Amino acid sequence: MADKIFRVNMTDLTTSVEEVPADWAGHGGRGLTSTIVAAEVPPTCHPLGPNNKLVFAPGLLSGTAAANSGRLSCGAKSPLTGTIKEANAGGTSAQLLAKAGCKALIIEGQPKDDNWYSLHITPGNITLNKEEEVVGKGNFDVVETLTERLGKPMGIITIGPAGEMKMAAANVSVKDPDGKIRSCGRGGLGAVMGSKRVKFISVDSMDGKVEIADPDKFREANKTFAKALVDHPVSQALGTYGTNVLVNIINESGGLPTRNFSSGQFEGHEEISGETMHDLIKERGGRVKHNCHKGCVIQCSQVFNDAKKKYKTSGFEYESIWALGADCAVDNLDHIAEADHLLDDIGIDSIETAVAIGVAMEAGVLEFGDGEGLVRILREEVAKGTPLGRIIGAGAATVGRAYGVTRVPVVKNQAIPAYDPRAIKGIGITYATSTQGADHTMGYTIATNVLGVGGSVDPLSKEGQVELSRNLQIATAAIDSTGMCLFIAFAALDDTTCLPALIDLINARFGISLTGDDVVSLGKYILKTEHDFNTAAGFTKEDDRLPEFFSLEPVAPHNVVWDFEGEEIDTFWDF
Amino acid sequence: MADKIFRVNMTDLTTSVEEVPADWAGHGGRGLTSTIVAAEVPPTCHPLGPNNKLVFAPGLLSGTAAANSGRLSCGAKSPLTGTIKEANAGGTSAQLLAKAGCKALIIEGQPKDDNWYSLHITPGNITLNKEEEVVGKGNFDVVETLTERLGKPMGIITIGPAGEMKMAAANVSVKDPDGKIRSCGRGGLGAVMGSKRVKFISVDSMDGKVEIADPDKFREANKTFAKALVDHPVSQALGTYGTNVLVNIINESGGLPTRNFSSGQFEGHEEISGETMHDLIKERGGRVKHNCHKGCVIQCSQVFNDAKKKYKTSGFEYESIWALGADCAVDNLDHIAEADHLLDDIGIDSIETAVAIGVAMEAGVLEFGDGEGLVRILREEVAKGTPLGRIIGAGAATVGRAYGVTRVPVVKNQAIPAYDPRAIKGIGITYATSTQGADHTMGYTIATNVLGVGGSVDPLSKEGQVELSRNLQIATAAIDSTGMCLFIAFAALDDTTCLPALIDLINARFGISLTGDDVVSLGKYILKTEHDFNTAAGFTKEDDRLPEFFSLEPVAPHNVVWDFEGEEIDTFWDF
Repeated sequence: MADKIFRVNMTDLTTSVEEVPADWAGHGGRGLTSTIVAAEVPPTCHPLGPNNKLVFAPGLLSGTAAANSGRLSCGAKSPLTGTIKEANAGGTSAQLLAKAGCKALIIEGQPKDDNWYSLHITPGNITLNKEEEVVGKGNFDVVETLTERLGKPMGIITIGPAGEMKMAAANVSVKDPDGKIRSCGRGGLGAVMGSKRVKFISVDSMDGKVEIADPDKFREANKTFAKALVDHPVSQALGTYGTNVLVNIINESGGLPTRNFSSGQFEGHEEISGETMHDLIKERGGRVKHNCHKGCVIQCSQVFNDAKKKYKTSGFEYESIWALGADCAVDNLDHIAEADHLLDDIGIDSIETAVAIGVAMEAGVLEFGDGEGLVRILREEVAKGTPLGRIIGAGAATVGRAYGVTRVPVVKNQAIPAYDPRAIKGIGITYATSTQGADHTMGYTIATNVLGVGGSVDPLSKEGQVELSRNLQIATAAIDSTGMCLFIAFAALDDTTCLPALIDLINARFGISLTGDDVVSLGKYILKTEHDFNTAAGFTKEDDRLPEFFSLEPVAPHNVVWDFEGEEIDTFWDF
Repeated sequence: MADKIFRVNMTDLTTSVEEVPADWAGHGGRGLTSTIVAAEVPPTCHPLGPNNKLVFAPGLLSGTAAANSGRLSCGAKSPLTGTIKEANAGGTSAQLLAKAGCKALIIEGQPKDDNWYSLHITPGNITLNKEEEVVGKGNFDVVETLTERLGKPMGIITIGPAGEMKMAAANVSVKDPDGKIRSCGRGGLGAVMGSKRVKFISVDSMDGKVEIADPDKFREANKTFAKALVDHPVSQALGTYGTNVLVNIINESGGLPTRNFSSGQFEGHEEISGETMHDLIKERGGRVKHNCHKGCVIQCSQVFNDAKKKYKTSGFEYESIWALGADCAVDNLDHIAEADHLLDDIGIDSIETAVAIGVAMEAGVLEFGDGEGLVRILREEVAKGTPLGRIIGAGAATVGRAYGVTRVPVVKNQAIPAYDPRAIKGIGITYATSTQGADHTMGYTIATNVLGVGGSVDPLSKEGQVELSRNLQIATAAIDSTGMCLFIAFAALDDTTCLPALIDLINARFGISLTGDDVVSLGKYILKTEHDFNTAAGFTKEDDRLPEFFSLEPVAPHNVVWDFEGEEIDTFWDF
């Protein structure tokens, strides 16, 4: 199936399948969504208005047998940050879209009426239908209802109640191989989908296949690539404890944001750690290893059962556990798991929402440590769109604004993730300079600042942090274009066979001859394209700053502040 | 009494009275607050954090017998807009501060504890006290309680519950000659005062007097000046119908924003017009004419009684009546008066709050036209700081964000006032380019676009609007430095004796010899100082734009859109 651009105009309710413009042919994933958004979306448009566009793109290697290549990129102008945005997730849809010959799906315009719609994609074709049955339903119900209606397993991309309510923290949710939920979580792209009145997209590849230009070379490269992934010690730790292996590590480093970023260590860290979780999973008959998409060889996901040994949640991530846990001072893993399940069902970003609740706790809306209260707020307020639910669903910055709080951990209005930038300074550079607001996945300096991957850079010193973040952000932008999970980066940084094998995979897929330099150029092109969009939208270097409180309040246990000058941060863009 | 700078440091709870720096000596009112904020406040600081400063300054002529010179300027970095901000109000405090020799009062820092404080100013002295009794009380109760406690009439500057809760739309409220409330309304300066934990400031001038360098010249100039004011037809209309004379005029022009800016005419305009209000006031034994400060010769204020002939509100302004009325489709003047009274008591901006409710109505929070519901929301939600009250109290942009609304009439996060910029294009240039977010008082082009004052510029054409707005913004900045009410501008634009008399007043007061050119230079200096602050805070020309919906949605009855290009708007700054 030759790749095409699938386009839906929600204003006049038409669809089309178009040839791929020459400029877009070499792109996939984030590189493609950002290229399309930059080309077609006016930077100053309202993110929830008719001029924004929601773009989906599988990665360059999605749909092939390449290990870990099943990430789906979703892009638009973000209603949370106002910047360009790409968020990616596992699940089954990236591979199915690629197999259906969909290089990118562009949803534009906005219906004039109040109807809801769904899209159905098959090879070379896209149809638009009115939808009523699953409107208003939570994500698990949507997937279950549609699986029954469609009669066979298909890809499903959907929004939950948060997206329907156009909450700025709403996810685009993607069905995973078990019928559970993976999330394009950051930046509120679910609200953009809601503003287009598209409740879900179903994908049937009808046994379509992605063509490989050089199958032998591909097979060989994949073997080398997968081995590099499997052999890396971080991959192995991820397979055993999940990403939540980080709770104890980051707590030890003094960079585990606690009680709305007022401390760098959480006294309850043992109760919520990866090790505790691992033991609980075994005790309750869950699954320690689990993959979010077919072909993953790291398997950092898991299935977490409740005390009655009944399924509670999967993909129980460090970020969610930290945010619902340490940041809200909740040390009960069952409350956190219940909250995680609700967040998946509502379809709302766990980082943004939990950090927002942390700010609300600081404002006195509920007590720090009140796990039951937190679950209640998600179930009774956020899911139902009450005024309090709306405040929290609009993200941490809005909570800060509504309650007049000054300790609001956001950059470009997006909540700061699970690493305190005062104690781990490299990640602070990533938060500040990222084209998409505070986001650890944009340039994960924790690898080198804390985990000793790709060398070592002292987390407490300013030395070398800008360069570290820059190199990682460039590499990440390129990786995000391949459909690869970001966790291939650990092997890529340490194992000299990994990156060449990845490049070989791309070359074998398309019959081309990219070099390592081309990959770096691709990463730079993506960052600059995104940065240019933001500049045209009105962002300046003053937006590349951390909130003032990081400079004013020393954080325990190291009692350090954020001490980068603006001019130092701005050297990030010297490339 | 020689002028001094009064300074309070709320971090270490100290006060000082300082000599006036040479650079500040020629400034008063807005010119002085903006000069001080630009000099002492880091542009990127959090507006509610310890690095922001709240500055009060009487005008250059405040405290003298000059007609209409009793406006008090209040400045800071705004928590609503993030820009530099000045808001001014009548009341008794400007004159009393000037008589007490207070050229400016600067409140800086932030207490480390949760106590509330009050300040007391006497000639050459300022004291700081803990306060408990009036904390949590509404403005009317505060004024009544303090008048009793202090034992004689004094100036009182206070915040209501909105300021205590640090709502981004909170006013700084000023006692007027009748013990009622005048508001430094725009930009949330009350939240800054709340963040400093200062509940109120009392001012006792102890019969102090402002020295006049040339009393004879001053007296003569004042006679000419006052006559020019009294003789102008707009002054006379204002004295008869109040500012609310504008409802019918602006409705007729097609620029009366209705139902959250979805139309330019309101079918209920007669019910809420100045003419109807005038008749009701007479019928119910209120007062048609009334002044907000001693020495006002225009008297645009009024006392509005309820149906039982009991006092309900005073200073019942066009902006409030439009916002609570046409913008929310409420055509019952008694509901509007009740809401106006509550807004004064809560201490929150009528424009911001009512426009926020209009956006909430669009989101379905309550029905357009539901005046009782509107009053209930103010009394039960905003006053009490419930989650819905917090959303509305944070302003129209936050309501839009919380509910995913795209028709959100704000510039730099501040609600657009009572003139639709599509139908009256000059005011759109003022909204876009103002250094302080959307604000009609920054450059009131309505005078020339609609009222035929200072010439005539077709409101529906783009021709001449940038120049008109520029000239008015420069003049306004200068007028805002004198302590004069902005309504002197009508006479100043049409009567050739008015402006020279005003300059003579200043010269006679200080024994100097300013010229008309000096006044223009002062206005330009103020605008550029403010603009530079905003630029350093991260604002760009992309912030000098109206919301996208004005370009996308034609407004009835003229069915016109906002059609200025960015480049055209940016020529505003060519001076």
